[in-house]
Amino acid sequence: MTKKRGKFLTIEGTEGVGKTTNIAFIKQWLEDQGISYIATREPGGTPLAEEIRDLLLMPRAESIDETCELLLMFAARAQHIAQVIEPALARGEWVLCDRFTDATYAYQGGGRGVDQQKIAELEQLVQGNLRPDLTLVLDIPVEKGLERARARGEMDRFELEKQNFFEKVRATYIARAMLSPDHYRIIDASLPLDQVKASIGAELNAIFEPSYVR
Amino acid sequence: MTKKRGKFLTIEGTEGVGKTTNIAFIKQWLEDQGISYIATREPGGTPLAEEIRDLLLMPRAESIDETCELLLMFAARAQHIAQVIEPALARGEWVLCDRFTDATYAYQGGGRGVDQQKIAELEQLVQGNLRPDLTLVLDIPVEKGLERARARGEMDRFELEKQNFFEKVRATYIARAMLSPDHYRIIDASLPLDQVKASIGAELNAIFEPSYVR
Repeated sequence: MTKKRGKFLTIEGTEGVGKTTNIAFIKQWLEDQGISYIATREPGGTPLAEEIRDLLLMPRAESIDETCELLLMFAARAQHIAQVIEPALARGEWVLCDRFTDATYAYQGGGRGVDQQKIAELEQLVQGNLRPDLTLVLDIPVEKGLERARARGEMDRFELEKQNFFEKVRATYIARAMLSPDHYRIIDASLPLDQVKASIGAELNAIFEPSYVR
Repeated sequence: MTKKRGKFLTIEGTEGVGKTTNIAFIKQWLEDQGISYIATREPGGTPLAEEIRDLLLMPRAESIDETCELLLMFAARAQHIAQVIEPALARGEWVLCDRFTDATYAYQGGGRGVDQQKIAELEQLVQGNLRPDLTLVLDIPVEKGLERARARGEMDRFELEKQNFFEKVRATYIARAMLSPDHYRIIDASLPLDQVKASIGAELNAIFEPSYVR
C-alpha cells in the first residue's frame, strides 16, 4: 500500500498576533491525534534558506529592489520545499509551517505594492500544484498587534514599517481567506488566549476527521 | 535635450576563455573612443548581489535545489539592474558586464538541464525589455579552457563540474548566438591573444560607429 500523503498546514498573521503560542497549541493537538508531523518556518527551514532569510531581515544601507526581495523569498521557499516540505509530505507526515506564500502576497504584495501577478507567476513556477491544505489566519487589529510586538522588543526591518503598511498586510490576508473559504480559516486572535485556542481546536477537529487523517 | 541612453555590452564564455584579459582590452577601446562607461559583473555588482553570489559559489553540504539556484541568480540580477545597470544606462553611460542572463541559459539551462522556459519567464519578470545591445561570446574548446582554468588554480563549485557539463554550456552559448546574430558575436578565443583582440576590436568598430555612440 502506498503511504497516504501528509497534510500541509500553514499559520499566518501580522506582527504580535500570537503565532508562537498558537503553534505550540497546534503541535499539542497533532500529538494528541497521534499524527507524525514536522514544524518549520518561512523564510527559512534549511541552512541555506536560513542564510537567505538573514539576507532579507538584516538592516542594510543598500535599499533592496522589490523584485530582488521577492525572488529571495521564493528562492528560500524553493529550497525549503525541495529539502523539507515535499519529502515530509511524501513520507506521510504532516507539515506545520509558520508562514508561507500567503505572507508573500500579504507583505510584498499588499504591504509593498509588488504586482500580485508577479507573485502568482513565481508561486506557480516554484510550487507547481503545491498549496496548503489549510491556512489559519490569526487576525488582530494592527495597533493591538504592534503593541504586543513592541513589548517583546522584537523589531526587525519589517516590524519597523508604519502602521499603514500593516493595515494593508492584514487586509490582504483577509481578502485571500475570504476568496478561498475551503482552504482558509480566519481566527480572531484578539480574544483571550483560551478562546483563541478553542477556536483553532474546533477548526482542526472539524476539518480533519480522525478517520480521514490516518 | 534628453541624454542618449548608454549601450549595454556583455561578455560571455566558459571557464578559461580569457574574459578578464579581453575585458581589459574592451575597457581600453571604450576609453580610446572617449565613451563613459562602468564595468561590472554577474552574479554580483552590488554589496547585496555579491552576498547572494557568495551563497551561490560557496561549497556546502546541503545540495541546492535547481529552482532555488535559478531564483538566487535572478534575485542578484534584479538588484544589480535596479542599483547599477539601469541608472548608468539612463545617465548615458555604457555598461560592460562580465556575464549576464546568457550565462544563466548556458550554465543552469544547458549545463544543469533547468527548463529554459522557466529561465525565459524569470528573464521577462526581472528584466522587462532590458536586453544587451551586444553580447560577445568568447569561444574555446572545453578541454583547452579547463586546462587554463586549472593552471590558474581557480576552481570553485562550478569549475569542479565535469567536462560534459561544459560541453553543454558551450553548445548553449553558440546556439543562442546563432539564433540572434544581430545581438551576438562569437569570438574564437583559442587563437593567439593578439588575434582575439583584433577580432573584438573589429566587431566593436563595425557595430558602434563613433558618430552613433555620442
